[in-house]
Amino acid sequence: MRLSVSADDRFGLHNLPYGVYRVAGSSPRVATRVGEHVVDLALLLGDEVFAQPSLNAFMAQGPSRWASVREALADALAGDVDPAAVHRLADVRLEMPFEVADYVDFYASEHHASNLGRLFRPEAPDPLTPNWKHLPIGYHGRSASIVVSGTDVVRPCGQRLPPGESAPVFGPSVRLDLEAELGFVVGTGSSIGEVIAVDEAEEHLFGVVLFNDWSARDIQAWEYVPLGPFLGKSFASTASPWVVPMAALEGARVPVPAQEPGPLPYLEMERPWGLDIALEVVINGEVVSCPPYAATYWSPAQMLAHLTVNGAPTRTGDLFASGTVSGPDAAQQGSLIELTRGGTEPIVVGGEKRGFLEDGDEVVLRGEARLADGRRVGFGEARGRILPARELVVDTEVE
Amino acid sequence: MRLSVSADDRFGLHNLPYGVYRVAGSSPRVATRVGEHVVDLALLLGDEVFAQPSLNAFMAQGPSRWASVREALADALAGDVDPAAVHRLADVRLEMPFEVADYVDFYASEHHASNLGRLFRPEAPDPLTPNWKHLPIGYHGRSASIVVSGTDVVRPCGQRLPPGESAPVFGPSVRLDLEAELGFVVGTGSSIGEVIAVDEAEEHLFGVVLFNDWSARDIQAWEYVPLGPFLGKSFASTASPWVVPMAALEGARVPVPAQEPGPLPYLEMERPWGLDIALEVVINGEVVSCPPYAATYWSPAQMLAHLTVNGAPTRTGDLFASGTVSGPDAAQQGSLIELTRGGTEPIVVGGEKRGFLEDGDEVVLRGEARLADGRRVGFGEARGRILPARELVVDTEVE
Repeated sequence: MRLSVSADDRFGLHNLPYGVYRVAGSSPRVATRVGEHVVDLALLLGDEVFAQPSLNAFMAQGPSRWASVREALADALAGDVDPAAVHRLADVRLEMPFEVADYVDFYASEHHASNLGRLFRPEAPDPLTPNWKHLPIGYHGRSASIVVSGTDVVRPCGQRLPPGESAPVFGPSVRLDLEAELGFVVGTGSSIGEVIAVDEAEEHLFGVVLFNDWSARDIQAWEYVPLGPFLGKSFASTASPWVVPMAALEGARVPVPAQEPGPLPYLEMERPWGLDIALEVVINGEVVSCPPYAATYWSPAQMLAHLTVNGAPTRTGDLFASGTVSGPDAAQQGSLIELTRGGTEPIVVGGEKRGFLEDGDEVVLRGEARLADGRRVGFGEARGRILPARELVVDTEVE
Repeated sequence: MRLSVSADDRFGLHNLPYGVYRVAGSSPRVATRVGEHVVDLALLLGDEVFAQPSLNAFMAQGPSRWASVREALADALAGDVDPAAVHRLADVRLEMPFEVADYVDFYASEHHASNLGRLFRPEAPDPLTPNWKHLPIGYHGRSASIVVSGTDVVRPCGQRLPPGESAPVFGPSVRLDLEAELGFVVGTGSSIGEVIAVDEAEEHLFGVVLFNDWSARDIQAWEYVPLGPFLGKSFASTASPWVVPMAALEGARVPVPAQEPGPLPYLEMERPWGLDIALEVVINGEVVSCPPYAATYWSPAQMLAHLTVNGAPTRTGDLFASGTVSGPDAAQQGSLIELTRGGTEPIVVGGEKRGFLEDGDEVVLRGEARLADGRRVGFGEARGRILPARELVVDTEVE
């Protein structure tokens, strides 16, 4: 059969993202998406590396294989395709596309960091901490908590300090938030002691996903001094099911904002590039914000170079996220804590006020890259619905 | 053959730790240690789950299997043992005994947290942050950086802020430290949304390792506000090669120090237990400190309950560490930053002054559990030698 897809489709032959699909009664396998169809890659290309439930084995094969497979894919999809390899998108279930090795979340948007600095440390003269413009601040997160789009998110319980109190209370988070981010997937790793220079990052970067780093602001605020976010972030993060290859995004490269003061040599690039990716935050069907990834201060290559400059090893399947993407305008902020000024100025969604997320709310991140030639590259979506907290039964009787 | 081991050997039949060994020309396999011998478990018990390069498959089988294997082991080792299954410890290489899934480091010693609070935040009225006595503070670390005892550690490079300066410099860490810790290994995990209650922790905990969480204090001090330690910790952590099963440590349980104020119900236990494990920090052959794990405030069960109370999932191979173990006395502090008051009062090791670690220094953590019946349980050691920083060649020429 012939797969027809219009040249301006966000999932046209210029995209060719990688995902993992499942149909009833079969094991998960690697696929690409063309328009509204998914195509089984093991069947299309006759390559068993794709007859697996994750992309990791293929990613580990390295950048020259990624390039030749991408070429073979485009060729094969332009000709006759075995109908057995093709499914309608609506007929399959998309799974988490790769096994996450180590997960790091950065804090690379100056607008976001400034907004949060003003909210969390109102007494500080500068909303940015003194280190912010010298290094991409990051921290490790919980790999096991990363779930694929469509997975419901149970409202987390935890400790929070009610305003004016000196002792914490325990219960469901009352300040549950989203964070619109991009996630960068490492295809080939590096040994312990090895440094990935900024100009070598492209040999390691495989692709990009949308990423919602759900955050319980009340739990986070109480726990995060001095060792950083922990339970406020570790209950769930949602990734989009399609990993868009870096090769599909070459036409979307744009310079990052001017970096002043200039970074230290190991972070310095001739032309540090970001990506012109437009994000949308949708709550209960209504677009509430449009964060522009292009406004992000630190570039993906700088984040990876920083991550490894101390000799930390990387592995196939490592995921590092940008941190919340926020632009300079109010309608471009990538989290509710920014959009509502810490909950004090609720926004209206579907006629209802929202300071933070309510049970039953559904959050969808959407994104598309804008190529220099006018075409768009789709990412699909990162979708999650908030379920009520589970009742925690604790036997408080101590005999 | 008969394996003879004296009743008071730290690796007698009351210990039976699990490790992974390799002899030249063979694949790594699971073993136990008896005295100065290692015994191949697949050969001893005829069970293929041990013919693997990690403990994960066995650990995933769960606590009733752990108990029956321990019983079978003791029986088999008391009788005739196939000589093909036995090697002298000196003839084998010990490997990392399990694949680390998610790694969390806690901050569970009140003495350590107080000592660091005084050094890092001298202006604060209380050395402990307000949350410290309400929850076991923790953060995620880098799983890929965990190496087995005997692995050399390259001095990391990174950014640091020289005293009195406002801009950072880049180079090898000049405040390289060790941290004497215990690591707890999760055998069976829990699903996302599931909470491991304090009283259920024992069903999930498999065993204990010694753990040196190497720390570059200068890198850490500059980067850690506001999101916690990152590159200051992620270059390497060293684990001992033997995982001592929780079952071998039952006789070493002791009450944790009094917890005042009483913790919230989800952290409350009738008798919270710690472990009477005596640690030793050895630098270049000289014992410089003897941290007592029994003095640690938060218990292992409390750390695991806290980690999952927000619904975060756990997996076979998760490792959570205690954080630096320090006792109330100066000679019981588990890091150089404490022992030397931030480097200002160097200690003397082998006739040389040490504020922090020098290239060529070898650090060994040793530990043994003291059972109520007087026997000891050995852990082996976590050993690592500091190699000089690698020269980082950065092309600073920007055309």
